[in-house]
Amino acid sequence: MGWAEQFEKDTCAIAAAVSVVGDPWTLLILRDAFLGVRRFEDFRRGLGVARSVLAARLKKLVQYGIMRIGADDLSFGRRQYLLTPKGRDLFPILLSLKAWGDVHIYGRGAEPHDSVHTCGCHIDPKFTCAACGGPIEFGDLRVNTRAAKKVGDALAAARAV
Amino acid sequence: MGWAEQFEKDTCAIAAAVSVVGDPWTLLILRDAFLGVRRFEDFRRGLGVARSVLAARLKKLVQYGIMRIGADDLSFGRRQYLLTPKGRDLFPILLSLKAWGDVHIYGRGAEPHDSVHTCGCHIDPKFTCAACGGPIEFGDLRVNTRAAKKVGDALAAARAV
Repeated sequence: MGWAEQFEKDTCAIAAAVSVVGDPWTLLILRDAFLGVRRFEDFRRGLGVARSVLAARLKKLVQYGIMRIGADDLSFGRRQYLLTPKGRDLFPILLSLKAWGDVHIYGRGAEPHDSVHTCGCHIDPKFTCAACGGPIEFGDLRVNTRAAKKVGDALAAARAV
Repeated sequence: MGWAEQFEKDTCAIAAAVSVVGDPWTLLILRDAFLGVRRFEDFRRGLGVARSVLAARLKKLVQYGIMRIGADDLSFGRRQYLLTPKGRDLFPILLSLKAWGDVHIYGRGAEPHDSVHTCGCHIDPKFTCAACGGPIEFGDLRVNTRAAKKVGDALAAARAV
């Protein structure tokens, strides 16, 4: 049984999110979308991804309301794929992947892209609690389980199209 | 050409991180590791993953120094897979996947797991800049590119084993 079928029986927001965006091509398509790529041909060329793979990933992102097709020109070649607000909310996932890759694969000082915050400083993103402002680190959480939908049912309800 | 070969030619910390942890099974293995799972058989049973797939993923996580094999008992059945500091630094990736899945797949109030911070409040994690303390959102970054290793070379250098 593949991961998708297995994940659907789980009751977990991480499994749900991973089902939608947690594969290598999708994560890099999203990276490029945040960097301003919009057209099928530009995604394809930039990533070196097969057309069929790219088309399937973009279709799924539209299906879940993460991207929408720009209304200015719907002919396939000119069609634009734009991040929705739900898609832009994926930004912390990309940023945390970048932060980890910078520190643990490239190493400090050897990062391919230096990110500068609006404050002028080099970005060193930290998760903080919106309530108290304190840091959120592993071990700072208590997790309470409650009755909830299985991933498969939650995904079906979350589809926009 | 598969994603791994394609990614290796890229020069990008996100592609590097995704190459190591950005696949569905690996992300859920890491989730379970953060939740305290340590033994091969417990990962296998909890995830419903094939032995061969699990073994390959754990081997890669050890190879990149994200997990280490516990020294207490090295016989295969009793072997423990433990997150290293480098592995624990993946926590923001899991937390941001959870936050997105909670809000956009399950919806507020229907989250399967309610996370409570040490401050007593429900977690609503936000990325802040470690320098100025301000929020980091999409659009708050300026990215400067510099000469850096290709992903394949960075990955080769980052392997612990």
